[in-house]
Amino acid sequence: MKTLAELRQEYEGYKALGLKLDMTRGKPAKEQLDMMEPLLGVLSCKEDCVSDGIDCRNYGILDGIPAAKRIFSDILGVPAEKIIVGGNSSLNMMYDTMARAMLSGVIGSEKPWSKYGKISFLCPVPGYDRHFAICQYFGINMIKVPMMDDGPDMNLVEKLVGEDETIKGIWCVPKYGNPSGVTYSMDVCRRFAALKPKAKDFRVFWDNAYAIHDLSDTPDTIPEILSLAAEYGNENMFFEFTSTSKISFPGSGLAAMASSEANIKSITKQLAFQTIGFDKLNQLRHAKLFPTKESLFEHMKRHRAIIKPKFDAVISEFDRQGINKLEGVHYTRPNGGYFISLNLPNGCAKRLVQLAADAGLSLTAAGATFPYGKDPNDSNLRIAPTFPPLADIEKAAKVLSCCIKLTVAEYEYNLASGGDYLTHAMG
Amino acid sequence: MKTLAELRQEYEGYKALGLKLDMTRGKPAKEQLDMMEPLLGVLSCKEDCVSDGIDCRNYGILDGIPAAKRIFSDILGVPAEKIIVGGNSSLNMMYDTMARAMLSGVIGSEKPWSKYGKISFLCPVPGYDRHFAICQYFGINMIKVPMMDDGPDMNLVEKLVGEDETIKGIWCVPKYGNPSGVTYSMDVCRRFAALKPKAKDFRVFWDNAYAIHDLSDTPDTIPEILSLAAEYGNENMFFEFTSTSKISFPGSGLAAMASSEANIKSITKQLAFQTIGFDKLNQLRHAKLFPTKESLFEHMKRHRAIIKPKFDAVISEFDRQGINKLEGVHYTRPNGGYFISLNLPNGCAKRLVQLAADAGLSLTAAGATFPYGKDPNDSNLRIAPTFPPLADIEKAAKVLSCCIKLTVAEYEYNLASGGDYLTHAMG
Repeated sequence: MKTLAELRQEYEGYKALGLKLDMTRGKPAKEQLDMMEPLLGVLSCKEDCVSDGIDCRNYGILDGIPAAKRIFSDILGVPAEKIIVGGNSSLNMMYDTMARAMLSGVIGSEKPWSKYGKISFLCPVPGYDRHFAICQYFGINMIKVPMMDDGPDMNLVEKLVGEDETIKGIWCVPKYGNPSGVTYSMDVCRRFAALKPKAKDFRVFWDNAYAIHDLSDTPDTIPEILSLAAEYGNENMFFEFTSTSKISFPGSGLAAMASSEANIKSITKQLAFQTIGFDKLNQLRHAKLFPTKESLFEHMKRHRAIIKPKFDAVISEFDRQGINKLEGVHYTRPNGGYFISLNLPNGCAKRLVQLAADAGLSLTAAGATFPYGKDPNDSNLRIAPTFPPLADIEKAAKVLSCCIKLTVAEYEYNLASGGDYLTHAMG
Repeated sequence: MKTLAELRQEYEGYKALGLKLDMTRGKPAKEQLDMMEPLLGVLSCKEDCVSDGIDCRNYGILDGIPAAKRIFSDILGVPAEKIIVGGNSSLNMMYDTMARAMLSGVIGSEKPWSKYGKISFLCPVPGYDRHFAICQYFGINMIKVPMMDDGPDMNLVEKLVGEDETIKGIWCVPKYGNPSGVTYSMDVCRRFAALKPKAKDFRVFWDNAYAIHDLSDTPDTIPEILSLAAEYGNENMFFEFTSTSKISFPGSGLAAMASSEANIKSITKQLAFQTIGFDKLNQLRHAKLFPTKESLFEHMKRHRAIIKPKFDAVISEFDRQGINKLEGVHYTRPNGGYFISLNLPNGCAKRLVQLAADAGLSLTAAGATFPYGKDPNDSNLRIAPTFPPLADIEKAAKVLSCCIKLTVAEYEYNLASGGDYLTHAMG
């Protein structure tokens, strides 16, 4: 192992390179977007704009055209009657769903959620910052629940949900979680489906963002949650979300939600107040480009061919550098999704982000994977390797490895000396 | 004048034709949509997708790309800093704006609007049903204000707004109103700009839907309301909305809002919680197709060439049939927009809709132009002549003229006889 001084020297060497690398968000790379070039011109004349007798250019249709519902049937394994195809952002559908619950309640509500003095959502951590931000915006209290290797701590979920009427929901990313990479086990999914919440209007926000975003030949699988929930009479308890943001174009894809027929009917009724309908031409573009489930899965293999080497580059560099042998350090080897989750000794996450930033490598802010942006242990970081070109990722992995080792060495120095290395070294 | 019996006979003749004509909504006609065919293929390769250095395919940009803001600058005469370009529906932007006000308030709010026991909006009548539906959805009380020839009754608006803190806003369609066709006079606009509301968080929802939708060579004009309001220190009081729904594609156009820089900044901040951003590729498509203000106005002339003859067909048929000479009947001759407003003697609107429907002509429901769908006088109807082909409109105008004359004849018979013609004639 190198000494603290040697690591510092190595780090200064990287710093001198004046790099500018961005691993902040789970953004598809340019190469991935280029694959979708055919989407641009797939509707080229006016005759192309009609689908199932619907003129997709004009007003009308709130819940999505049948051809687009079929895509999401293929992705989620849910029949078209249980699907609404929305605009270009599943985050927006989640926000809208929450806004409607706040203002009008959901099926089973005695009153709108905003009429309670206080309501809470369970937030498995580490989790997705944008989910937590929605709760924060609406003033919904967030209760942290630890993520285990097979999903959230279900003993705790069942206990909390079973005894508190003001806990109105939970955020879930059931497959290839953001950032944990964890896929819920069959047992965890079944326990979710069978939940007996005290609140009659409890809702699981089941964000199946990475439903077909596999990185291996042996992809993880989860059960189709709506039918599983129906076995327990909980068919109205799930709002499932997904999108093509990481299939077609992040800014111009399709979002969708799936739920019980009763929920879908109730939401469609509310949508009539909200909009004249979503962009049906873009729905039709997608339907034409992905006419079959096979075409969709073939396309996802091409995504994998681009991004898997980037994950490998980070993980193999970490392995090579012995990061996995550092005390208190752990990183995931995800089977899909867009993130590597990195755990450090307590109090090290912010320091690592700072060191990386100073060496020209932007990481997601420390704390972002926790409600209110506050990681109580300051230990978890989300690594997003998909956006930069592979050559940059290879560089970034080296810089990051050095930063991790330096961070941990500083940490250990401080532990051993009871002193403050930073003041010592840099003051 | 024909007798009641003769009119009845004429009406039965139309009924026997088995027509199927739809004048329910202000929908552009197929010919208008066909004009926009070039929009479909305007982005054809990946290189086309970059605008001002922004890769419009990927995530990012909440408030719209600069190239798209320029279009709305051209339409509204408002600088880009005061504009947000949204998704495909200005109704959705209005709904979202109301939802945010309900949940978080606006600049100047002491508390979110939903925290009041009761709040009200002023609703000039006749007005747009979708505006009223948004109030209805959020449980906002609606106070009717009569539309005059030059805009809403401003004496009443000033009085109500000046004395009641729970009146939080007013719906306005300042140009070519839906359905009245009325354009607010300079004096009315100035009185709006100078309003002194009791509520510090009062907002004018200024739906400039028909900003460039002229039907004549001498179009109506309104002042740019944001700068006018700024003269009176009321720059935060206006939320202006518009869209290209009736310029490009109704279902796949662009929506935008304009407001003070402070409002725009505050809304953009809230948008960060709500969405990953709107569809920038569609924004760029529009920017490429309408590179200049001239190209936009040239395009609107082509719309006019399609729809003006439809308005003329209805109005000239009404004139020819002497509808304008019937006691208590009045119809507008709009200089722009999408509607003809038809006023009948009290109690006649529903009957006319019924007679028309029975003869195969669907009209907007009676009452739709009033809050809660209730026209207290049952006298106003909205005629939407744009969607059907001209030949159908010519037929529809004949049927409608006959139905109006029959309705009025029945009304007069009842007045004179004190009896109930319907029971008499059909019982």
